[in-house]
Amino acid sequence: MSRKASLSGFHEWLPAERIVEQHVLDTLRTTFELHGFSSIETRAVETLGQLLRKGDIDKEVYAVSRLQADPGERAEQAEDPNRLALHFDLTVPFARYVVENAGHLSFPFRRYQIQKVWRGERPQEGRAREFTQADIDVVGDGSLPFRYDVDVALVMAEALAALPIGDFTIRINNRKLAEGFYRGLGLTDTAGVLRNIDKLEKIGPAEVSRLLQSELGATADQADQALALAAIRTQDTSFVERVRALGVTHNLLDEGLEELAAVVGELHRRAPGRAVADLSIARGLDYYTGTVYETVLAGHEQLGSICSGGRYDALAAKGNRTFPGVGLSIGVTRLLMRMFSTQMATASRSVPTAVYVALTHDDDWSAAQDTARALRSRGIPTEVAVSAEKFGKQIKYADRRGIPFVWFTRTDDGQTVHEVKDIRSGEQVPADPQAWMPPHEDLRPRVTGA
Amino acid sequence: MSRKASLSGFHEWLPAERIVEQHVLDTLRTTFELHGFSSIETRAVETLGQLLRKGDIDKEVYAVSRLQADPGERAEQAEDPNRLALHFDLTVPFARYVVENAGHLSFPFRRYQIQKVWRGERPQEGRAREFTQADIDVVGDGSLPFRYDVDVALVMAEALAALPIGDFTIRINNRKLAEGFYRGLGLTDTAGVLRNIDKLEKIGPAEVSRLLQSELGATADQADQALALAAIRTQDTSFVERVRALGVTHNLLDEGLEELAAVVGELHRRAPGRAVADLSIARGLDYYTGTVYETVLAGHEQLGSICSGGRYDALAAKGNRTFPGVGLSIGVTRLLMRMFSTQMATASRSVPTAVYVALTHDDDWSAAQDTARALRSRGIPTEVAVSAEKFGKQIKYADRRGIPFVWFTRTDDGQTVHEVKDIRSGEQVPADPQAWMPPHEDLRPRVTGA
Repeated sequence: MSRKASLSGFHEWLPAERIVEQHVLDTLRTTFELHGFSSIETRAVETLGQLLRKGDIDKEVYAVSRLQADPGERAEQAEDPNRLALHFDLTVPFARYVVENAGHLSFPFRRYQIQKVWRGERPQEGRAREFTQADIDVVGDGSLPFRYDVDVALVMAEALAALPIGDFTIRINNRKLAEGFYRGLGLTDTAGVLRNIDKLEKIGPAEVSRLLQSELGATADQADQALALAAIRTQDTSFVERVRALGVTHNLLDEGLEELAAVVGELHRRAPGRAVADLSIARGLDYYTGTVYETVLAGHEQLGSICSGGRYDALAAKGNRTFPGVGLSIGVTRLLMRMFSTQMATASRSVPTAVYVALTHDDDWSAAQDTARALRSRGIPTEVAVSAEKFGKQIKYADRRGIPFVWFTRTDDGQTVHEVKDIRSGEQVPADPQAWMPPHEDLRPRVTGA
Repeated sequence: MSRKASLSGFHEWLPAERIVEQHVLDTLRTTFELHGFSSIETRAVETLGQLLRKGDIDKEVYAVSRLQADPGERAEQAEDPNRLALHFDLTVPFARYVVENAGHLSFPFRRYQIQKVWRGERPQEGRAREFTQADIDVVGDGSLPFRYDVDVALVMAEALAALPIGDFTIRINNRKLAEGFYRGLGLTDTAGVLRNIDKLEKIGPAEVSRLLQSELGATADQADQALALAAIRTQDTSFVERVRALGVTHNLLDEGLEELAAVVGELHRRAPGRAVADLSIARGLDYYTGTVYETVLAGHEQLGSICSGGRYDALAAKGNRTFPGVGLSIGVTRLLMRMFSTQMATASRSVPTAVYVALTHDDDWSAAQDTARALRSRGIPTEVAVSAEKFGKQIKYADRRGIPFVWFTRTDDGQTVHEVKDIRSGEQVPADPQAWMPPHEDLRPRVTGA
């Protein structure tokens, strides 16, 4: 991360950084699959019509066109809904995939999706134009039991806890709770209130109160109550009493309180300290209809959310048929950039190789391949030298890459003698290519947290 | 593959197909890493200048531009070398990556790269506009020992043999051999001869002979000799004698014969039946300077090459510094399309899940999560039912997804009794969540060849 990207906003990792990325992605995949999520990938391009379906995000879109288009294709207009563009998230493509393949899928459908997405925005600290997201969603056909709102949060808490990123907090709220509370207060433009509450961290409570009064016609008391709600933050379900103490009542508020208590209660039980009910969370312009989640990294709160999501009443629709969904998305690249810039995690070497088979004579290459094959058959990543340079030079090859072991073969009284050297300690011992194993922690590159 | 892509040329897999794809990609990754190749990924976009560096491929390129570009950006011309476009292979981006990061890499640098690439061509049978490639290359700084030409072929033979694709043949030739032979014959436009020899399979020897004479001014005898060379195909190194028998001599021919014999000889020894010396292989317009490889699938020869590559004297260059390379690239998507259309391989189920924990009462959900956690801690992918529907319905959930086991819990005399049912055989037995393991072959979805 000390290197500058040759194209602003498009980051490329060096091999040792890529090992950390692979570790992160493998860990996520393992956790998602242990919880029964199926992998899918969608094409990188969508039609503009699809991408803009949910509103005005066109500033961020990269359009795609054949460089040598046919005359008919040339006519494409900037606004043509059939024009192709790179996807900017994995939710919109997934919704299209569900609608297109509904007849081939079993609902509720649990899927994870780890892919790159692109946004044509001006890069800034922590922003990239190309980045990897890792999403899980459960989508139902017509209805989707609320318990999935608890389920996906448990899965993500487990996935994030398995990463070398230290402590994190999943902040959870519920749109029904907030909306019911505002309605109970007598405020009808609930979207307007949410939009202002969303600015709380940026502009502070006094300014939000002023906006609620000036823009939405709230009384000072209504504004105070809305701010009092947003100030509630508890690790367990005690937020319910604190909301009740504000004296507001509404059916939707009851429903939201019950849902949020179910999510936070179960997380408190199964992943203590990982989640809080945070009644200030609004998730801005996103189209959530119930639970909303965001996640901050301890000590890196100003990085913003590294894992967000929520419940949609209609993730997708096909005629009268709706597909409700709930899910969360990790911004993997944003997380990695922070991990690298703060040395949060490092790889023990820059190559997969555990053993480097040295050559004593150039002609030994084929025999050295036999040794390597025997080692590889037990899962030991092995490289073979291509020429019989001085041993010092061959050891240097391994050393520069962090390869821990160099394998030597010599002929003694007509017998082939195998020895393996740990180049960190210098210890060299006889070894049988058919049986020797490195210590478990040296088999593959290790990724360790700071 | 019976489904039609919603965007022509952009294929998306269903979950069970994706499991086959994951199996293929995991197998390749495992093999490449066992041989010490480092993973890298490059950004999806390159500048047009980069992409067009090696010649006229612009017809196939997808240009990329911000939909709402700034006024300054608007001015970009179709031919602007700074314009962005999606990469159409992984070689050009890798070459740029090597030049940009040369100071951070250790040479020879062994890398594998598995990513999507895009080509804006008209789709046809077996062609896609978005497809995944899996490349390995070894690149040197200034020089790269010839043995790597043998090494990469051995790695790919091993990787392909591990896939459920049946028999294949790596066809190997050497540009020096062909060029030396033509020069020895007195034909100086060796690129012209190669270009015509490349048409052999399409237009036949008589027509190639005619073209060699009419276009390149070859004599009938020279044309016959060039065709005689292209007709040589041997599983071992006996091609050397057959070439010698044609009576042509040239230094470059000697060098090419020696190199090709080294590659084919070692492959014949270590991967018998997997490779042939095929002196008709030209690899068209590619910029190879020595060994060239292509690979056909037995019974699917008309599909074309599924894995191709070769040696470049200068994969990349930075001022006076050149980076020679040798490598091979698998067209993964093309292979998968054929695998699916001919039922070459199938997944044993469409989800990762091995166990579905059923609910007797709605309130059991949290306890069922304890059971699931115990199973997952031993690597058993497990889902939990969200409501206590009739057991028949819960079993149907598992059955439709191919989940082999359903877990039941009941209370007997105040004791919790656990039982697991194999829904294929109907057998139901007592089981301990802390100890029970499914048979190894049921732990994860199995991918099997036809």
